[in-house]
Amino acid sequence: MGNDTNVTWHDHQVSRDKRESLNGHKGCVVWLTGLSASGKSTIANVLDHKLYQMGMRSMVLDGDNVRHSLNAGPGMLVDTHGETFAKRFGLGFAAIDREENIRRIGAVAQLFSQAGVIALTAFISPYRADRDRIRKNLEPNEFIEVFVNTPIELCEARDPKGLYKKARAGEIKGFTGIDDPYEPPAAPELVLETADKTAEALADEVIVHLRERGILPA
Amino acid sequence: MGNDTNVTWHDHQVSRDKRESLNGHKGCVVWLTGLSASGKSTIANVLDHKLYQMGMRSMVLDGDNVRHSLNAGPGMLVDTHGETFAKRFGLGFAAIDREENIRRIGAVAQLFSQAGVIALTAFISPYRADRDRIRKNLEPNEFIEVFVNTPIELCEARDPKGLYKKARAGEIKGFTGIDDPYEPPAAPELVLETADKTAEALADEVIVHLRERGILPA
Repeated sequence: MGNDTNVTWHDHQVSRDKRESLNGHKGCVVWLTGLSASGKSTIANVLDHKLYQMGMRSMVLDGDNVRHSLNAGPGMLVDTHGETFAKRFGLGFAAIDREENIRRIGAVAQLFSQAGVIALTAFISPYRADRDRIRKNLEPNEFIEVFVNTPIELCEARDPKGLYKKARAGEIKGFTGIDDPYEPPAAPELVLETADKTAEALADEVIVHLRERGILPA
Repeated sequence: MGNDTNVTWHDHQVSRDKRESLNGHKGCVVWLTGLSASGKSTIANVLDHKLYQMGMRSMVLDGDNVRHSLNAGPGMLVDTHGETFAKRFGLGFAAIDREENIRRIGAVAQLFSQAGVIALTAFISPYRADRDRIRKNLEPNEFIEVFVNTPIELCEARDPKGLYKKARAGEIKGFTGIDDPYEPPAAPELVLETADKTAEALADEVIVHLRERGILPA
């Protein structure tokens, strides 16, 4: 390869514009934030499916695909990486661990967006500062903060995993909305008022918004 | 959204097969491993460009796009996240930090692969155990380990960043190939013998291999 290793390849880099042209839409991060059981994952997956049917490239990032790998807890790392490693790098539930959890997801979502993909993230992400840091790392029009605004009474009535019940009983500490704050976005790109709406209708609201922003073709 | 939050959305999940059908090829991780200045990033970027021209979806993960975000060092985190956070989560150069560096890249590459994208990673990744762990997390035929086999004499003669020189002078400790081992893959999917070949020719070797494996269409 001669001695010009660091000279030639920059000419070969595929620009973001080119990837987006290939896909027929822009890359971005659709950041869904809201209480536990507010419907974030449901909306993200329905949206993902609709985008797929439209021939768009998208990817959902949620607990299902990051909790056991990217953001694995100590218990998941101890067998493969040893105790010292697991203790050092396994993510727990302390405030600082949660901050790192969200930081990494933001970094990965950014990589997907740079690849021309519409990254759909579905995490409670209760703290405004954490979300704002991700926004600052992205380009203008690249971070679409979507507040999934479901009243806590409704979330608690659903309680699909019995988490609210456990939090009320004091069995889970630091549960968002019970004994830890949820900080709603100050200026989200979109608010989804979910009560009495289907996930399909809510996903359509996001699609309309992405069209209006020029992320999806008209 | 009613009370069936966790029931309905599984019907809406976009399978990996569907994403791959949309793209016209399979997702996978092409893991380039080799010495510093062996040509990994150059080959990855030329390959990425060729795949783009073929209408395939690919993404390069290398130091350029993970070092300042996903795997940021303490110095990069201190301003935004505070000293305690930076100390706890910033990745340094200790053996354990390098292991975590590679672990995270493996996790992100896997997410891209699951999204139907051909992830091209370009990291020295000198330890066999680290690479093998990533392989184990992936499906058969999903991890394509490519040994970029450039003689150290040639890498050192290139030395585009002067790192070998510093390592020889003892200014950098634990430098792969000088005072830290490089463990070549025991059974890589592909070996690139780079001496006297252009990056274009080497990228073509990878493309031929991906066709033979059925990852790219014939």
